[in-house]
Amino acid sequence: MGHGGGGTLSAELVEQVFAPAFGGAALAERGDAATLRLGGVRLAFSTDSFVVRPLFFPGGSIGDLAVNGTVNDLAMSGARAAYLSCGFILEEGVEIETVSRVAEALGAAARTAGVEVATGDTKVVESGHGDGLFVNTSGIGLIPAGVDLRPARVVPGDVVIVSGPVGAHGVAVMSVREGLEFGVEIVSDCAALGGLVAAMLAVTPDLHVLRDPTRGGLAASLNEIATGSGTGVVITEREVPVPPAVASACAVLGLDPFYVANEGKLVAFVPREHADAVLEAMRAHPLGAQAAIIGEAVAEHPGMVVARTGLGGTRVVDMPLGEQLPRIC
Amino acid sequence: MGHGGGGTLSAELVEQVFAPAFGGAALAERGDAATLRLGGVRLAFSTDSFVVRPLFFPGGSIGDLAVNGTVNDLAMSGARAAYLSCGFILEEGVEIETVSRVAEALGAAARTAGVEVATGDTKVVESGHGDGLFVNTSGIGLIPAGVDLRPARVVPGDVVIVSGPVGAHGVAVMSVREGLEFGVEIVSDCAALGGLVAAMLAVTPDLHVLRDPTRGGLAASLNEIATGSGTGVVITEREVPVPPAVASACAVLGLDPFYVANEGKLVAFVPREHADAVLEAMRAHPLGAQAAIIGEAVAEHPGMVVARTGLGGTRVVDMPLGEQLPRIC
Repeated sequence: MGHGGGGTLSAELVEQVFAPAFGGAALAERGDAATLRLGGVRLAFSTDSFVVRPLFFPGGSIGDLAVNGTVNDLAMSGARAAYLSCGFILEEGVEIETVSRVAEALGAAARTAGVEVATGDTKVVESGHGDGLFVNTSGIGLIPAGVDLRPARVVPGDVVIVSGPVGAHGVAVMSVREGLEFGVEIVSDCAALGGLVAAMLAVTPDLHVLRDPTRGGLAASLNEIATGSGTGVVITEREVPVPPAVASACAVLGLDPFYVANEGKLVAFVPREHADAVLEAMRAHPLGAQAAIIGEAVAEHPGMVVARTGLGGTRVVDMPLGEQLPRIC
Repeated sequence: MGHGGGGTLSAELVEQVFAPAFGGAALAERGDAATLRLGGVRLAFSTDSFVVRPLFFPGGSIGDLAVNGTVNDLAMSGARAAYLSCGFILEEGVEIETVSRVAEALGAAARTAGVEVATGDTKVVESGHGDGLFVNTSGIGLIPAGVDLRPARVVPGDVVIVSGPVGAHGVAVMSVREGLEFGVEIVSDCAALGGLVAAMLAVTPDLHVLRDPTRGGLAASLNEIATGSGTGVVITEREVPVPPAVASACAVLGLDPFYVANEGKLVAFVPREHADAVLEAMRAHPLGAQAAIIGEAVAEHPGMVVARTGLGGTRVVDMPLGEQLPRIC
């Protein structure tokens, strides 16, 4: 299960099995989306399969995830998603009504995100050989001129901004799956970030890198950026917004909210001179209202993420091995 | 199971569940690939999930299918595939060696087809909730100027050409799955058709429609074209090439080779004045060496496919309800 968790084991699978077999320059970039040239146009292209369990959870469904997950991967390269593909693998015996509900959620999420479902496919496997319904979406979008978002562009001094409180999606799915209650209902943050990214790029196309901290959470995204940029990253723990209910739930469950998946958040590394203006633009957008500066890129400890704790000490924020919560997306 | 078979039940699922939920102009075209405009460029975009069982069969594997299936869908819109995405859903416990073999086959098939695997994703589900390994690929490619392939362009008098003998893929998978032997080994025709299509378009960009007869076989493709064009289609049974071993196997198994899936064949509707030159170009290509004219589009019985039998009679070639052979791709 760990190999599907978005952490070190997933990375090993990519490095040792897939990358050698596939080769290719675009794959070598290891972004959330590939950056391509086709017919003189610069495109982002990304794919995700969704196996979340249960199919419906507080704040969303596999249909919402299938749109927002891929739209957000494209957004992290600066692209506004234009078209999605949608491939269903149904297990024999799944209710048509369930398929309809998922399709309707997916269609509604696509309209909200301003992306068109352009092509699709359906396969059916025998009962006992699937799990109700899996969905894959792939997406394409145009990358605006002058935008070049990748870890290698990060330099010491860059400011690290998170678009809002972290950890809600993973805890929301976990709570409904396990029948847990935490006094207040914790709702997934599942949302499409294309509009927020466009608002940020309107301040300056010169953002350095964006990531949406899904599987492996904020910790995995920061570690990927630290590794890919060769800079160190320092964050201040108490500056990272965590909803109180999520913090309580994590305490009860023994989870670290920095490692819990989000589906409607992003982390940005921004040149220091633009940081205030970008933060302001984010806070003016509904999906960035609680955006916060949480740290910076530094020349020290290249490739490593360190958190300043409340007590004035520091701790290393490791790359997770796998995902704490399986089948979260 | 029938809803995944590429026949009437699949079409119902699309018409009644997916299309109303998703809307969208590109999806409304119902081609093998969507035809899109993005940044002033005309693109084809397609997706397919692959659930074939077993993963390896005479002549190919799920890795070959995953490349060729999507490359061929793009080729049917005239596009040369440029980039593929690749999403794996692994079942906990699948051998890493199996995943590696599939990845290597997929990478090799991509190199043969001249397409780059640009982006990927891996999810893992618990043992008993998947079936070893499923793969989704999506692909994008440029559509050459002047090329406009769709059923609506078919007119009475168009010549129907098939690129070679039909039925091998389905029978090859079936034979290994069921442990059947037919004297000679029947090998899947799995192949990438981008080069063959380019050779045909070099004769004239004015081909009317192309389809690759996968699930539902030649019968499903011809019916889709008849329905989409509003013309009738007449084929001469004995002109449709069927390998003798496939014909024997179908006789034993009670299958009709017109309904068996292919993975490296296409059917073309070509203006009569170009038919001989296109046929010649196809025969000059290794994947079209046995291309044959099998019939024509007619003004009579619009939307219906009719076969002239060997005895001078005719029979209706119906749209299949589902697929005779489940999980063939």
